[in-house]
Amino acid sequence: MIPFRAPVDDIFFSLRTFAGDVPCWDAELSHEIVRHFAGFAEGVLAPLNAPGDRQGCRLEDGRVVMPDGFAAAYAELAGAGWQGLTAPEDHGGQGLDHLTAAAISEIFTAANHSLQMVTSLAAGAIETLMAHGSAAQQAEFVPRLASGAWLSTMCLTEAGAGSDLSRIRCRAGRAGDAWRIDGQKIFISGGDQDLSAGILHLVLARTGAPEDGVKGLSLFLCPAEVAGRRNAVTVTRIEEKLGLHASPTCQIEFDGATGWLIGAEGRGLAAMFTMMNHARIDVALQGVAHAARAHAIAAAYAADRHQGRTADGRPAVLADHPDVRRMLDEQQALAMGARAMCHLALAEIERAERPALVEFLTPLCKLFGSEAGIRAADLGIQVLGGYGYLEEYGVAQIWRDARITAIYEGTNGIHAVTLATRGLRLAEGAAQGDFGALIGRLAGDDPATIAALAAWREDATRIGASDDPLPLAHDFAHRTARLLLRAVWQRIAARATGEGRADAGDLARIAAALPA
Amino acid sequence: MIPFRAPVDDIFFSLRTFAGDVPCWDAELSHEIVRHFAGFAEGVLAPLNAPGDRQGCRLEDGRVVMPDGFAAAYAELAGAGWQGLTAPEDHGGQGLDHLTAAAISEIFTAANHSLQMVTSLAAGAIETLMAHGSAAQQAEFVPRLASGAWLSTMCLTEAGAGSDLSRIRCRAGRAGDAWRIDGQKIFISGGDQDLSAGILHLVLARTGAPEDGVKGLSLFLCPAEVAGRRNAVTVTRIEEKLGLHASPTCQIEFDGATGWLIGAEGRGLAAMFTMMNHARIDVALQGVAHAARAHAIAAAYAADRHQGRTADGRPAVLADHPDVRRMLDEQQALAMGARAMCHLALAEIERAERPALVEFLTPLCKLFGSEAGIRAADLGIQVLGGYGYLEEYGVAQIWRDARITAIYEGTNGIHAVTLATRGLRLAEGAAQGDFGALIGRLAGDDPATIAALAAWREDATRIGASDDPLPLAHDFAHRTARLLLRAVWQRIAARATGEGRADAGDLARIAAALPA
Repeated sequence: MIPFRAPVDDIFFSLRTFAGDVPCWDAELSHEIVRHFAGFAEGVLAPLNAPGDRQGCRLEDGRVVMPDGFAAAYAELAGAGWQGLTAPEDHGGQGLDHLTAAAISEIFTAANHSLQMVTSLAAGAIETLMAHGSAAQQAEFVPRLASGAWLSTMCLTEAGAGSDLSRIRCRAGRAGDAWRIDGQKIFISGGDQDLSAGILHLVLARTGAPEDGVKGLSLFLCPAEVAGRRNAVTVTRIEEKLGLHASPTCQIEFDGATGWLIGAEGRGLAAMFTMMNHARIDVALQGVAHAARAHAIAAAYAADRHQGRTADGRPAVLADHPDVRRMLDEQQALAMGARAMCHLALAEIERAERPALVEFLTPLCKLFGSEAGIRAADLGIQVLGGYGYLEEYGVAQIWRDARITAIYEGTNGIHAVTLATRGLRLAEGAAQGDFGALIGRLAGDDPATIAALAAWREDATRIGASDDPLPLAHDFAHRTARLLLRAVWQRIAARATGEGRADAGDLARIAAALPA
Repeated sequence: MIPFRAPVDDIFFSLRTFAGDVPCWDAELSHEIVRHFAGFAEGVLAPLNAPGDRQGCRLEDGRVVMPDGFAAAYAELAGAGWQGLTAPEDHGGQGLDHLTAAAISEIFTAANHSLQMVTSLAAGAIETLMAHGSAAQQAEFVPRLASGAWLSTMCLTEAGAGSDLSRIRCRAGRAGDAWRIDGQKIFISGGDQDLSAGILHLVLARTGAPEDGVKGLSLFLCPAEVAGRRNAVTVTRIEEKLGLHASPTCQIEFDGATGWLIGAEGRGLAAMFTMMNHARIDVALQGVAHAARAHAIAAAYAADRHQGRTADGRPAVLADHPDVRRMLDEQQALAMGARAMCHLALAEIERAERPALVEFLTPLCKLFGSEAGIRAADLGIQVLGGYGYLEEYGVAQIWRDARITAIYEGTNGIHAVTLATRGLRLAEGAAQGDFGALIGRLAGDDPATIAALAAWREDATRIGASDDPLPLAHDFAHRTARLLLRAVWQRIAARATGEGRADAGDLARIAAALPA
């Protein structure tokens, strides 16, 4: 196993290149904070990743037991204040920017995706409560989440109601000031655990009639304990998954559980989307984490493993072989490219000037970032050959862990459709225009990217005008991602040369070779 | 879990279409035999697949214990004579053709890849002994392998000597009439097991000096027991792998083990290649098996799962959604296309008229078939969404099991290089000419395929003349595979229409949509 090293320098190269002009971002402070987290991730989180995968979680007397060492690591994480990073300062948080949070999220996932899964939903819950909760709800729950005393879940999916939320059957009815929740939820990450003192379930449940579809849904907060007694919330099963074995994916029964409405009745979906939009960029960053870690392992292995000879007859290492170099370059292109896309999107979020462009970039980041992680992990296995197929070297686990990212928080197919329909229509086409302008800025004077942009605009116009865009969505979304990838890489190569990075020549080669 | 049904009709449609004119092939007899095996695979082999994956193999007191039920299933397999299918009749086999064997191999893998791994090496060992062994060796060992009393291994890889066999350090020295073998081998499938009474190790070891490279290698037979006593062959470890948990991948120590030379000293690699060439088409068929099974699971699930609405507002199932249809079509294209390629190659082997074409098609089948299986399994996970990420539905296991096929029996990168170098030069370009003629025959009057063939010929000429073809190999190999895929699909669509298959319209749609 090649030890985990957080790619702090690469992350800050990317932040400076793609988000350096965001006013709220203090690069120096951010770097200091992230370096501090990197040490914790390398020393505490990463060493638990493979053992946690092997041991997995178990259900004992209706409660989830996490793998050995996870509770202690979480206590350290919470104790250092990392759970409250972006929470408002007057609710016990540190009020930091989303760029710093993104750097930390990427490093956390690369070190230990399972634990990141279980702990990262709290940030989305804080955002949801701050946007839709009452002042009393905020005052009661945000400090608990920010301190790490509590963790939270997102109880959305039901059997047969994954991508299609109109089929949700879980019901909520008034019971005095509170509500009574009944029904079953599945695929609930961290549905129970033994890390935090409390758990706050955010539950999407039906308050209207079934025929109201998604308009009959409301969002509830439902603590695992109410007034010192267990709420009627029971984990009935942990799923056996391909990966993320240390993240308990639970089936939960709400059997007359007590909950409180968040925001307005019938507006559950809007509130849930606050949480999901946060999660979507986070999923893209998970892809970045997987891609970068898979590349680091493969590059280290390929530089070290002797095999065959070079064209001129000298003993070679794996990385000297053109086909291995091709795979390492592709991993690098995916990792740095997907990271650049996320940083671009987060910078737009922080600047808050082009909301339509943010909405356009979000599904694109989710789709491309997740596929980048899976693909780079797959290439990592191939570079390591037979050793890559062993669990011992860690790339196999990356591949297993990464695979869910193309499915959760909206399948990639759904994000492609969103991009090709709503994305192109957003703000009367403003997003499309903003995206084209962004590509133009990034591309500099690269003729291939400029030509590809012109072709893309024609496509976008054609698809925007189509009566039946759905069959075209997959190809269009991937063409859009390829165009953005080529464009960000022109900027990466130019900046690397400008800064005199030692690998500027390699990066220029990668930038020039990408299809547009 | 959707029960396994062997795709016997699809397999025979393909054999009739792509190998129907092979003289030694008796379609009716073949069909009867394969139907018989299909029943055994569905009833006995497939039900052990998921439990075997969960339980895995273990090492106890230096011996490998297979998962529960495997020994009984193997006894039934051997008892029915399936291990001697292609062995010569005068050595206790049934002397059947390779097309029937291919159908059985595909079904075996789809039902239980792990058990197929452990048992299928015997056919390659029989072929190797018949081609390179002495009459006495053939008389002693082939009947044992054909009856299933013995199984065999292929002891090739060493630490640091996977793709680069010139680095092999395992040594053999004369000891009277026999040889003494010393060294360590890794990644040995079925290196030990509790299925068969005897095990025959075929071992590649160095009889010359290290500087002789692969010319100093000889092939040995090395029984696990000699004259009723254990030979000095010890399994020291079972690897923990991504998949194929029921196939024990062993590290083996030869500590003065007694062995006998097969064929001539220093000719070990040639003998080993007899075994590996057999194995390569078998790996391609493993890919076919994975692709077809993943498609069957995804298609059944997508036809059954209700989600959303159609464009005209009716309740829809998953398969009604264009993006899901795209994924199911791609799986089908890969499964039937890779199967067609294998059947074409096997028909060429049986006809024995164009050996250069066989050598050209073998790496192409290995590369495309293995990637088809992995990709179709990946699509299967995506179609099932969150359920695909659970182990319960079986597609996750297919993905894990399939992943090794792009690595073993020569990595796909090496096969791409073989195709772009040796493949193009074979018999002074005869293979290239034969391949072009084959595409022309298959394509019928499809203009896109004919145009793509012309472009491919130009590429092939350019790459054949290049001083540095290695960096071009990956793209060229995949372009070659895409061309063959498009061509076989024109034939599939035409034949389906001609036979009035119920799904002829779907197949024509798939054929027309493939890139050339």
